Amino acid sequence: MTETLTIHQPDDFHLHLRQGAMLQTVAPFTGDYGRVLVMPNLSPNPVLNAADALKYKEEILAVFQANKINCQPLMTIQLNEDTKPQTILEARKAGVIAAKVYPKGQTTNSANGVEDYDKLFPALVAMEDCGMVLCLHGEHPGKKIGVLDREAKFLSILRDFAWGFRKLRIVLEHVTTMEAVEEVCKLPDNVAATVTVHHLILNLDDVIGDGCKVHNYCKPVAKPEEHRLAIERVVLAGNPKFFFGSDSAPHLIQNKVDTGCAGIFTAPVALPLLAELFYRKFLEKNFENFVSVYGAQFYGLPLNEKRITLKRDVIQTGPSTIGGIETFYAGRVKNWSVYQN
Amino acid sequence: MTETLTIHQPDDFHLHLRQGAMLQTVAPFTGDYGRVLVMPNLSPNPVLNAADALKYKEEILAVFQANKINCQPLMTIQLNEDTKPQTILEARKAGVIAAKVYPKGQTTNSANGVEDYDKLFPALVAMEDCGMVLCLHGEHPGKKIGVLDREAKFLSILRDFAWGFRKLRIVLEHVTTMEAVEEVCKLPDNVAATVTVHHLILNLDDVIGDGCKVHNYCKPVAKPEEHRLAIERVVLAGNPKFFFGSDSAPHLIQNKVDTGCAGIFTAPVALPLLAELFYRKFLEKNFENFVSVYGAQFYGLPLNEKRITLKRDVIQTGPSTIGGIETFYAGRVKNWSVYQN
Repeated sequence: MTETLTIHQPDDFHLHLRQGAMLQTVAPFTGDYGRVLVMPNLSPNPVLNAADALKYKEEILAVFQANKINCQPLMTIQLNEDTKPQTILEARKAGVIAAKVYPKGQTTNSANGVEDYDKLFPALVAMEDCGMVLCLHGEHPGKKIGVLDREAKFLSILRDFAWGFRKLRIVLEHVTTMEAVEEVCKLPDNVAATVTVHHLILNLDDVIGDGCKVHNYCKPVAKPEEHRLAIERVVLAGNPKFFFGSDSAPHLIQNKVDTGCAGIFTAPVALPLLAELFYRKFLEKNFENFVSVYGAQFYGLPLNEKRITLKRDVIQTGPSTIGGIETFYAGRVKNWSVYQN
Repeated sequence: MTETLTIHQPDDFHLHLRQGAMLQTVAPFTGDYGRVLVMPNLSPNPVLNAADALKYKEEILAVFQANKINCQPLMTIQLNEDTKPQTILEARKAGVIAAKVYPKGQTTNSANGVEDYDKLFPALVAMEDCGMVLCLHGEHPGKKIGVLDREAKFLSILRDFAWGFRKLRIVLEHVTTMEAVEEVCKLPDNVAATVTVHHLILNLDDVIGDGCKVHNYCKPVAKPEEHRLAIERVVLAGNPKFFFGSDSAPHLIQNKVDTGCAGIFTAPVALPLLAELFYRKFLEKNFENFVSVYGAQFYGLPLNEKRITLKRDVIQTGPSTIGGIETFYAGRVKNWSVYQN
């Protein structure tokens, strides 16, 4: 008897689609999702306002249509120290649903990120007014803060925003520490967090424990095992403040090797790996909540009407690169395949 | 006026010379040292007994002589769970001065390392009897111990050995944590530690803080800054329990990139970088103690009679690879050059 899981079509609330040739390569892996929240940190020209977002959306939709992909891109803009309230309001009118803050110099294409978070206050007022969601890369930009402490140190900023802007919906993206998990649990309901599939699987030892493994390197870097366990625990328990955002971040393998850049391309295996994680703990219902329900609820979106079915099987994952992009979990078994209903 | 430092010729109490072509390439960088303690973890055939050590010494001396290098190799053997007391005694008679323990699977060529440290007791008795020094790679081999905790967790083994074998001289190699520094300070005088130049310069952020930098990857991995500071403090203070062992470990750059293997080739820049570290704190006298005095005293060797002089200058370091081997601190300024007196 084949074991199956039929769920509302999932959403990915944190996805890097890139542009041009790379967008062409990664687009097919969005086919299983109803909606994807598209990150704005393009290089050299980030998405900063309504016009940028509309132009980028057009590029994405053209590729989706050419590939017969029926997935809705949800657009974001980058929120910087000099983003004007008017820019926020215009972007919201143009359908942009979230603004993303990168701490300066902490991750891919974040040179124009934020150092002084107080400078964001006027824009946050506008976001609260127009109902735009704030997405935070939660690492403190302080130069002297060690890489393992940057997320925990960022939490005071999160706290200020959460209590100071009670109507602003805030997502702490890709949480990696027990401190962040605890803080998000404690903060009011305007705060939630996304969790990636790789942070549910990897810990610091997978990066530097037995050889230096750049293909497991991302920002925030995976933390020691006790932190991974804390994330896994809150996610498996079905806490509605924690939902899926893959942070799937394609990089050419040559760039990973040459520059050691941060980011893991998980899109080809994310749903099967997550399904297995919940399945092994007999928590399949929470799988659907994690990938299809809690995120939509937090963003104020209806559940996707369409459903997908995952079937359990022994299935080899794909090759280690796709179009030159290094893939996560290559050459292993993923246990589930996804079928459109 | 040129600033100079004239010191007894240093010793390096932890050095990887390798064999064959790589030995040929790295041998010239031992020229400034009176003596170097040569590590036994050759692949595929480690140095396990007197015969191995004599054969390896012959190979080294042939290369030294061909390169007119006037440096004495001090030989070690690898101590494994099945090393017999007789093997220890024979090696000591053949001039081997130390036995090195690798924890199984923790570093380069350590597949035949130790898991059960209690099995070493008979060999330790023999070492105590014949005056052979025990060199410990201080990381616990337990599979479930996170990479940042392995040195601290190893300290209970060190403690057992130190108190159980009061006449056995024990060196905790390449310390990287404040816990190890504190423990070595507290233990009786039969325990000392070596410190590398790279662990005085690098911290965890230099490995995974801003990109994943395999060229800064070694075992034990560099720890967060507070640990580096603890090591720097005890070394600059001139604590005689802490002396120089470079752990300079040459790897072909292609191997570093392809496999992420552990090890940093510091030999070409070690003495200049150390001189600068002490110079900047007005502690030049402790520089000589660290590189030329404390190690010799612990090993019961006379100071080298010859002296070398370091002159302060703005000097570019060498290329990023030498004979295909990735070098530390390439393309930077090293501040000192070494002259034979």
